[in-house]
Amino acid sequence: MNKQVNFEDYEVGYDIPAAIGMDESEIQTPCLVLDLDALERNIKKMGDYAKSHGMRHRVHGKMHKSVDVALLQEKLGGSVGVCCQKVSEAEVFARGGIKDVLVSNQVTQPEKIDRLARMPKLGARTICCVDMLDNVADLSEAAQRHGTEIECLVEIDCGAGRCGVTTTPKVVELAKAIDAAPGLKFAGIQAYQGAMQHLDSYEERKSKTQIAIDMVQDAVDTLKAEGLECDIVGGGGTGSYYFESNSNVYNELQCGSYAFMDADYGRILDKDGNRIDEGEWENALFILTSVMSHAKADKAIVDAGLKAQSVDSGLPTIFGRDDVKYVKCSDEHGVVADPDAVLKVNDKLKLVPGHCDPTCNVHDWYVGVRGGKVETLWPVSARGKAY
Amino acid sequence: MNKQVNFEDYEVGYDIPAAIGMDESEIQTPCLVLDLDALERNIKKMGDYAKSHGMRHRVHGKMHKSVDVALLQEKLGGSVGVCCQKVSEAEVFARGGIKDVLVSNQVTQPEKIDRLARMPKLGARTICCVDMLDNVADLSEAAQRHGTEIECLVEIDCGAGRCGVTTTPKVVELAKAIDAAPGLKFAGIQAYQGAMQHLDSYEERKSKTQIAIDMVQDAVDTLKAEGLECDIVGGGGTGSYYFESNSNVYNELQCGSYAFMDADYGRILDKDGNRIDEGEWENALFILTSVMSHAKADKAIVDAGLKAQSVDSGLPTIFGRDDVKYVKCSDEHGVVADPDAVLKVNDKLKLVPGHCDPTCNVHDWYVGVRGGKVETLWPVSARGKAY
Repeated sequence: MNKQVNFEDYEVGYDIPAAIGMDESEIQTPCLVLDLDALERNIKKMGDYAKSHGMRHRVHGKMHKSVDVALLQEKLGGSVGVCCQKVSEAEVFARGGIKDVLVSNQVTQPEKIDRLARMPKLGARTICCVDMLDNVADLSEAAQRHGTEIECLVEIDCGAGRCGVTTTPKVVELAKAIDAAPGLKFAGIQAYQGAMQHLDSYEERKSKTQIAIDMVQDAVDTLKAEGLECDIVGGGGTGSYYFESNSNVYNELQCGSYAFMDADYGRILDKDGNRIDEGEWENALFILTSVMSHAKADKAIVDAGLKAQSVDSGLPTIFGRDDVKYVKCSDEHGVVADPDAVLKVNDKLKLVPGHCDPTCNVHDWYVGVRGGKVETLWPVSARGKAY
Repeated sequence: MNKQVNFEDYEVGYDIPAAIGMDESEIQTPCLVLDLDALERNIKKMGDYAKSHGMRHRVHGKMHKSVDVALLQEKLGGSVGVCCQKVSEAEVFARGGIKDVLVSNQVTQPEKIDRLARMPKLGARTICCVDMLDNVADLSEAAQRHGTEIECLVEIDCGAGRCGVTTTPKVVELAKAIDAAPGLKFAGIQAYQGAMQHLDSYEERKSKTQIAIDMVQDAVDTLKAEGLECDIVGGGGTGSYYFESNSNVYNELQCGSYAFMDADYGRILDKDGNRIDEGEWENALFILTSVMSHAKADKAIVDAGLKAQSVDSGLPTIFGRDDVKYVKCSDEHGVVADPDAVLKVNDKLKLVPGHCDPTCNVHDWYVGVRGGKVETLWPVSARGKAY
C-alpha cells in the first residue's frame, strides 16, 4: 500500500494513479509514466541541435498538452515558446506562463476569434495561421475591438493536403492583406509538412521536404521583393528537422514527438538506416499496464485498451521485452501473447504507444519516475482542449 | 455570441462548449452533441423490450461514462443498475447515486481490491467478475477487512478470447470457492460475447451467441445440481440482446451502444437484412464539427480529428449528407471531400463516430439538444477513469 495517499479518506476519493515518493511498482494502472532521465536527455539534445544550427525551437505543445513539460523544454532546451492547434490549448499555455504562443492552425469561429484576440492580455505574444482572405478581416476586427495585436503567419500547404495555400501569389495576397489590417501584424510563414514525417525512408523524407523548402524559399524571396519580411519561417518535425535546419530559409523548428517518442515514429530510419528510437531519441513515455487475467495459458490480458491509448497508428509495443507481444486491443483490455507463460497476474509492462499525441490526450496525469521512484505528478494541462 | 457564458470574464476562462439556452448553431466545436429526443426514444424502446421479455437490463455505463445518462436509463428504461469496467468508473456511478454496480471485469491490483471492498459503504450493491482462484482469496480478505460484502460472478469466456474460464468444471470450482469465502457472495455468471456483436450478419451473430448460450446453460445446470443458484446470468449487447432474451437462461442484459449508436454498430444487419441504424435504433450521439478551412476547391478541413474521436473502428460518417464525405483524420483535422464545393468556412456538420465508447472518453461534456436549442450540459462523469 502506498505511503502518501490516504486511502482511508474514501468519501473524498482520489483520482490520481500514484503519489510522490512511492515505488514504481505501486503505481495504479493503466497510466502514463515518464522516464524523467530520458525525457531530459531528449529535450537537451534537441535544444543543443537547434542552438548549434542557429534555429529557434518552438516546441509542439499539442503533443504533450502539458505546461510542466513546456516549461522544462524552455529551461533545458532553450525553446522560445510553444505552438499548439486550438485556442483552448493556447489559453492553457498562456495562463501557465508561456510567453510566446502560436496557434499553428486556422481560427475561424467568431467565439474563438474573440478568445484569441484577448490572449495578449494574458501576457503572451499571440500568433495564428491564415489561409483565407475573409479570415483576415474577422481577426482584424476582433483585435481592434480588444485593443490587442494578433500576429499572423500565412500557412503554406507544402504537401500535407490540409489547410494552407499552395502558390506564392496566394501567399503574397494574404500577407499584404494581413499587413494592411489594423490590429494584425504579418509575422511570416507556416510550412509544416506533416504528411511525410512518418515515412520510413530518410531519402523519401528528404525529397518531400525539399519540395517544401523550395516552395517556402520562393514565397520568402517574393515577399521580400514586395517589402515584407518574415520574422518566422516555421516548420519541421521529429522526422525532418535536420532538413529544415540546413535549408537556409526556415528559422523555427516545431518538433513535438522527439521528447516522448512513440512506436510509429520510432520505426522511421535515420540517414544510416537505423531506427530513430535506437540512438537518436529515447523512449521517455510509456503506458504502464498490469496483467489482470491469465486464465488461458498462452495469453495474458492487460488493463490498457482503447480508453488508455489511441491505436490510429498501430498497436503499442512492449518496452524491453521480446518474449511477449501486445496483439489485440479492445475498449478496456489488451491481449498479450505469452507463448511461454512467463507473465503472472499483477505483473506490470511498459507499453510504447503507437502514437503519442492522441494517447496523451486520454489521460489526466503524467507520473514522472526516476530511479524507480515517483518523483512528480504533472497534469495533462490541456487535455480535452479541442475547441 | 451566446447568452449565458460571460465572455468578459476572461481571466477565469470557460471550459464548456455551450451554454444552456443557446441555439445549436452557436455551440463551439468540436464537441459531443446528444439529440435528446432520439436518446429518450432509444432508452425507452430497450427498456420496453427488456420488460416484455422478463429480462433485467443492467445498462453498460462504460459506453457513456455519464451518471446523468445512467439515471435517465433508470427513469425511462427501468434499468436495474449499471455495469462498467473499472473500479474508478464504479466509484463515480456509486457516488452519483446508482445503487447496483457491477464491475464486469477482473479486479486484481491490491489497491483496487481495497477500493472495491469499500464501495458498499457508498450504498451500492457491489459486484465484480472472477476468473482465477487466487483472486477469490484476495477479494475475500479485503471484504472482511472492511466489513463489507462483495458479490462475485464467475466470468465465462464464451468466444471473446479475453478474460474468463472456458469449461464448466472451472466455473464450478470458482463458484464453490466464492461461496465458501467469507465476505463474498456467489451471485452468478458473467458471459458477454463481445467479439461477435459487430459482425454484420444476423445469422452469424445468432450462431455465435448460441455457442455462448449452450456454455452458460451447461454451467447454470451443473451449478444448480451442486446447490448453487445464479441470481445473475448476465450478457448480451446491442448486436445480440434478442438472442439472450429468448435463451431461457440469461436473465440480465448489458447493452450500452443502443442508447447512442455509432457508425460501426449502425452497419450491422437485423434479421430482415436492414441496418440497425435504419429503424431499430436512432443516432443520438454526434460529434459536432466546423469547417475551418476551404482553401482548396474540392476539400473542406474540419476541426474534429483524433483528439475528438477514436477511429479504431473506422472513420466517422456525416449524418444526413451524401454530398460530402469524411475521408481522412489526423490529430486535429478531418479532411472532408467536397467535390461540388457546397461547404463554406464555419459550416457545421454532425459526425456519427466510428465507435462511441472511446470517442465519448476523450470529451468532457455532452451537449444535450432539443428543438434546435441547448437544453442541458452533462459531464462525462467517469471520463479518463481507466484505473
